[in-house]
Amino acid sequence: MSEKKSFHMSAEEFRRQGHAVVDWIAGYMRTVEQFPVLSRARPGEILASLPDRAPRTGEPFERVLEDLDRLIMPGITHWQSPNFFAYFPANASGPAILGELVSAGLGVQGMLWSTSPACTELETRVLDWLVPVLGLPERFLSSGPGGGVIQDSASSAALCALLAGRERATGLRTNREGCDGRLVAYCSTQTHSSIEKAVRIAGIGADRLRQIEVDSQFAMRADLLAQRIEEDRRAGLVPCFVCATIGTTSSNAIDPVSRIAQVCREHGVWLHVDAAMCGTAAICAEFRHLQAGVEQADSYCFNPHKWMFTNFDCDCFWVADRSALIRALSVLPEYLRNQASESGAVIDYRDWQIPLGRRFRALKLWFVIRHYGIEGLQHHVREHVRLAQAFADWVRADERFEIPAPVPLNLVCFRLRAGDDANQALLDALNAGGELYLTHTRLDGRLTLRLCVGQTQTQAEHVARAWRLIQDRTATIAPRG
Amino acid sequence: MSEKKSFHMSAEEFRRQGHAVVDWIAGYMRTVEQFPVLSRARPGEILASLPDRAPRTGEPFERVLEDLDRLIMPGITHWQSPNFFAYFPANASGPAILGELVSAGLGVQGMLWSTSPACTELETRVLDWLVPVLGLPERFLSSGPGGGVIQDSASSAALCALLAGRERATGLRTNREGCDGRLVAYCSTQTHSSIEKAVRIAGIGADRLRQIEVDSQFAMRADLLAQRIEEDRRAGLVPCFVCATIGTTSSNAIDPVSRIAQVCREHGVWLHVDAAMCGTAAICAEFRHLQAGVEQADSYCFNPHKWMFTNFDCDCFWVADRSALIRALSVLPEYLRNQASESGAVIDYRDWQIPLGRRFRALKLWFVIRHYGIEGLQHHVREHVRLAQAFADWVRADERFEIPAPVPLNLVCFRLRAGDDANQALLDALNAGGELYLTHTRLDGRLTLRLCVGQTQTQAEHVARAWRLIQDRTATIAPRG
Repeated sequence: MSEKKSFHMSAEEFRRQGHAVVDWIAGYMRTVEQFPVLSRARPGEILASLPDRAPRTGEPFERVLEDLDRLIMPGITHWQSPNFFAYFPANASGPAILGELVSAGLGVQGMLWSTSPACTELETRVLDWLVPVLGLPERFLSSGPGGGVIQDSASSAALCALLAGRERATGLRTNREGCDGRLVAYCSTQTHSSIEKAVRIAGIGADRLRQIEVDSQFAMRADLLAQRIEEDRRAGLVPCFVCATIGTTSSNAIDPVSRIAQVCREHGVWLHVDAAMCGTAAICAEFRHLQAGVEQADSYCFNPHKWMFTNFDCDCFWVADRSALIRALSVLPEYLRNQASESGAVIDYRDWQIPLGRRFRALKLWFVIRHYGIEGLQHHVREHVRLAQAFADWVRADERFEIPAPVPLNLVCFRLRAGDDANQALLDALNAGGELYLTHTRLDGRLTLRLCVGQTQTQAEHVARAWRLIQDRTATIAPRG
Repeated sequence: MSEKKSFHMSAEEFRRQGHAVVDWIAGYMRTVEQFPVLSRARPGEILASLPDRAPRTGEPFERVLEDLDRLIMPGITHWQSPNFFAYFPANASGPAILGELVSAGLGVQGMLWSTSPACTELETRVLDWLVPVLGLPERFLSSGPGGGVIQDSASSAALCALLAGRERATGLRTNREGCDGRLVAYCSTQTHSSIEKAVRIAGIGADRLRQIEVDSQFAMRADLLAQRIEEDRRAGLVPCFVCATIGTTSSNAIDPVSRIAQVCREHGVWLHVDAAMCGTAAICAEFRHLQAGVEQADSYCFNPHKWMFTNFDCDCFWVADRSALIRALSVLPEYLRNQASESGAVIDYRDWQIPLGRRFRALKLWFVIRHYGIEGLQHHVREHVRLAQAFADWVRADERFEIPAPVPLNLVCFRLRAGDDANQALLDALNAGGELYLTHTRLDGRLTLRLCVGQTQTQAEHVARAWRLIQDRTATIAPRG
């Protein structure tokens, strides 16, 4: 063992290495288009390239950065590439990255108000800011009965909403006595899998999740929802939760929130609105019609870490009645008691989420909003929608293709009329080329490609090139008749 | 609206502002002792200092950094201060902060292997590294039937373990049909509140959580656990989960894992071992006896974000049988299907956790282990334990105080013999002074102060000063008789 007194990185060394890392990231920003978008690593390849034992003694930081390039970068799928059109985006930006850096540097733990009041109060303020910016109801404001909080993901937000709905429906009895097999939750056949996962986690059981049929546009049938709730109630079951989606993951379908909300109100069922992807669009007044009815939701979430230039993780979650959420999630041991919490004058966000601990995530959202301003955010969202709509027009004009779902915003679902094999071949060829990355879904049982425009640096030229590549590959797979 | 074409921060501007932020953090590292450790902000003060509307147009980044100093810093409780002795530490370090920065800069989403193979495989490798380093059983290795994953917190790890235990006990029936009121979970009266929260979330109900009595050292009575499980089984209930703790939050009590494991094995109950805080100590062979029996656990977690110089969030969670965990948590929609996953040759960590999305958290842990080396980590852990033991000796030598619980490692529980009012007055006076920060618990019903040595920069002088301050304040509150 060395006689060294401290192995810590000094402030001066941190400054030096920090500059190097910042320069490394700036370089990555400049060169990201040079990498194949989808990593070409084979299963186990990165693992095998890493030593199988931890180092006994410390190594120079320079060597770690070299290994980052040498060992890690070949295994990166480049989500920040302007040619990343897969899944939903996870767009980041300079101010977001720097907000995350400040958060790591401060290293505060925001579980309670008192463990860093600014961590809680900046979050409250920024979430309040977004309520009018997104045209959300005033009752979501912290100054009223509601309030907002940052979750790691829409999955976790949905789980919290489900638990609040479960406890409201049973007068907090489930928290004490457990589920009794009578609770029921509802979504559509197109709803994100996180709802089924939440229903399982919460002890309700997947058999008690009613996946309501959708219409020709893949939107939930509110009439069938009403029927099913009535049937369940007649059968002595307890409907406790409905999830409506503004922009499904598969095709960006928009559930009819107003009509669903009416059904929920009639039956006293918790309505959660998941706008993980499309919520960002509501910063533009012209897209706000898509969320009509949200003013009646019990809870709502959207992900700045998808389309609002804020690196993962940052899901914004609001409730209309914060006491319902807190009652469902609060457990108070002695070692967390403190005067501020007991005064009732502060928010302790630990009671608004699944884990106890929490990072200072509001910083990055604050940095993003201040850097861009609302007008800057609007500009880029409008541009993404414009590019996706142009792409959809090109596809529509090519008789070899069809567009099987509406294109409300920035996701285009499209497929060759030539069938699943042709579409699979097209997808594989495109992704193997490394020049772009697309993923797929199934609509009406048929393999369908998805192109989502939402990465920070994606511009007209990238979308145009994507279409050229698709046409080129199609020429060999499904030549014109 | 401006005619500007892009509002994004350019790579060059990122470089410039990134250097400024790095310098800001280096400055914070140098000056952290100048702030009062516990923020003096009053409820609502930070909130009121922030504008009540989001900015319409973007602002210069310099102004945001100015506001960080002016508006946010007064509301920070300084977890990174060497005089932070409260709760459990959340220690960070230069390499960890820079790992977080690289993770934010790459902005990858590691939900599936294919969405960034390196994100998954570096995590697998680093978690495998830690198995021998911590003296954990080989069956936790990914090369066998087990494996490790990074969770956000020990709370989430416990919830995942509980769900795996719940599903194993019911043959996956609960995931389908929901809880039926017969499942039972076990912990001690001293176990962290996250277990009660998990039991509520999972639909088991707090009434079905048996909080087993502890012995005089606040450790779970394995004999009473066995009795209770037998009673419950005779009553037709289904024991599904036991949580044993290595280092409780209240007093660092060490549950007898070996004896608890024997009980669990006899009854086929899932044993989760929560070593959130003390797990780090096992990197030193001389402290490893505290975890005797861990080789029989079904799951285990510890938090590098507490005591291993890795900024929050980073909880390492292992299971002996990964298939039990994956079966409990996996839901597979079409839009996440991919060849690599279906080949079975890769790990998709989305099936090892509650949320779908995940950051590249392994980077910071990798940076930390490579920077310090195992010997560097050992050095600092030993030093923290030495300082805490010295503090305990000083307290023991002062007749005004008593130490009501064993001090196995770096947490000292102590109190004035003069009673709760005196201890509350002492705690309040110390924290109001701003020179250190302590929190409390209750042991045997009596208010007890806690001093935990674990912050990165805490050295002998800081602990010595803490003791001087405690003596000074005590002189006015509980003068020698």
